[in-house]
Amino acid sequence: MPELTPQVTRADIVRAQARMFDDFKPFLRRTPVQKLAGSAIGLECAEVWFKLEQLQVGGSFKARGMLNRLLSNVIPGSGVIIASGGNAGIACAQAANALGVTCEVYVPELCPPAKQQKLASLGATVIVGGAFYPQALQACLDRQRSTGALLVHAYDQPEVVAGAGTLALEIEAQAGIPDSVLVSVGGGGLIAGLAAGFEDRTRVVALEPELCPTLFEARRQRQPVDVDVGGIAADSLGARRIGRIAWDVTEKWVRQSLLVSDEAIRAAQLWLWREMRLAVEPAAALPLAAMQCGAYVPRADEKVCLIVCGANFDPAALA
Amino acid sequence: MPELTPQVTRADIVRAQARMFDDFKPFLRRTPVQKLAGSAIGLECAEVWFKLEQLQVGGSFKARGMLNRLLSNVIPGSGVIIASGGNAGIACAQAANALGVTCEVYVPELCPPAKQQKLASLGATVIVGGAFYPQALQACLDRQRSTGALLVHAYDQPEVVAGAGTLALEIEAQAGIPDSVLVSVGGGGLIAGLAAGFEDRTRVVALEPELCPTLFEARRQRQPVDVDVGGIAADSLGARRIGRIAWDVTEKWVRQSLLVSDEAIRAAQLWLWREMRLAVEPAAALPLAAMQCGAYVPRADEKVCLIVCGANFDPAALA
Repeated sequence: MPELTPQVTRADIVRAQARMFDDFKPFLRRTPVQKLAGSAIGLECAEVWFKLEQLQVGGSFKARGMLNRLLSNVIPGSGVIIASGGNAGIACAQAANALGVTCEVYVPELCPPAKQQKLASLGATVIVGGAFYPQALQACLDRQRSTGALLVHAYDQPEVVAGAGTLALEIEAQAGIPDSVLVSVGGGGLIAGLAAGFEDRTRVVALEPELCPTLFEARRQRQPVDVDVGGIAADSLGARRIGRIAWDVTEKWVRQSLLVSDEAIRAAQLWLWREMRLAVEPAAALPLAAMQCGAYVPRADEKVCLIVCGANFDPAALA
Repeated sequence: MPELTPQVTRADIVRAQARMFDDFKPFLRRTPVQKLAGSAIGLECAEVWFKLEQLQVGGSFKARGMLNRLLSNVIPGSGVIIASGGNAGIACAQAANALGVTCEVYVPELCPPAKQQKLASLGATVIVGGAFYPQALQACLDRQRSTGALLVHAYDQPEVVAGAGTLALEIEAQAGIPDSVLVSVGGGGLIAGLAAGFEDRTRVVALEPELCPTLFEARRQRQPVDVDVGGIAADSLGARRIGRIAWDVTEKWVRQSLLVSDEAIRAAQLWLWREMRLAVEPAAALPLAAMQCGAYVPRADEKVCLIVCGANFDPAALA
């Protein structure tokens, strides 16, 4: 009999929000929503809502999930441990720092020195755990078994998904419920949180780069499978397999999964700077790219919410 | 007897807001406010509100004043005309474009090719009117006399000030009334609008770079005077003399005028990117700089609103 997957529900997310925003302030930020008429930016829909989650502490939505994971567990003296060369590692280190617990981050060799320094500046111990992510993860798991530290996963833990899901409640409280929510998918933590949070109140649409078709390919093959990943957004969306929780939650709530070319993502990233003065990483430009390139076609009266998920990149790329 | 200066009042601003947002949408944007606890960002006050006006159309608050000037007048067939090498010229061209009227922009030789191209891409005719701004202005005035086009000033016209003042009403509607509003001063259009809009409901504080002390020096000498300007924010705050309207309005409503070093401004600009993922020009970092360097000291229970006024700069400067 297959192991039961821990599901995440709206009730989990309501609890996470109380835990994170009421009990433990002021670490997390309520990020703003910018509403524009579609016609003001050349899109054929009634309204476009930009949820500016790149302004979250740590520069991405990841802080929500990390903080909820840490606040939901008794943290041993050996602290917390994670394998991540990207936004999740930074967010975990930041949450650990805010809670005053020690944090070890295992990164692959290709993790840029700037990110390693950022982690160190947040008080984390950085360990290069091997050439690529799988080796770093293995070294992290070995270490965890010897120290007993709380293991944190970048996306495939219920508390991490529920934390990300607080975005859904926050959008609803700030702006109401949109007709659709367009969101990028890497390992699936963010879309799972949003989908579990919104349930059938809105239509959550999954977006991936053509070169990182992790959920798209899983849906085609009707189960999570390993895929090759690469291209412009691989540093944040390059999970090779969709998370188990994300798979179950998106199977229940998400009807549409679309792919977008790197060219369209890059064009949207440059457009967001030129026309809106939003400096964001490629993954965060993907929802707008889907509309601008016609991969997603809204109704004329539709209110579309785009999740602007992160801005951990070199802004010189906009020049 | 001295000529009566056209004053700007809250009533003018209320009318401007109706004209601009109700009658003529969706050109202008209601820009978001990001509220943070002071303690979350190392400041000793209750709350810091970031009014993200760099997300306004055209990348600065200037669009408000330009649109109100254009909507408040009958525009002749010869269109509108302005002398500006900066944000005001771009905003004027954008407003003219939205209204479908022709626009001539006189710029000095030092106006960067990128800004001239931006103006041209908005449909404006760009004329290099001389080596420096005074020559460009003179050429603009000569041309205006021959064409009869509607002359637009970057800051010293009542409609321009009233348009900028809609920021005050917008902040109030979005977030309530803060205890203080910290704002950068160039020619004074923005601070005059805010001060006339808020009246005595809050405390508006004038901030300038030490190297552009236009209002500070006028207050010291008790009248508008020419000053030397330079330094990191001169491209947007480098007006040599405070506007007549701004002088009168700030004399009535503004009690505090402070100077900040270029070093502190630069540090705040980098901090805003590193810690908040806000990519902004130096002038927009000035309010935060005043708090971080101790030039402005809030009370412990104070709610401080910082006006993030623009982002028309090269983001490579953040790398």
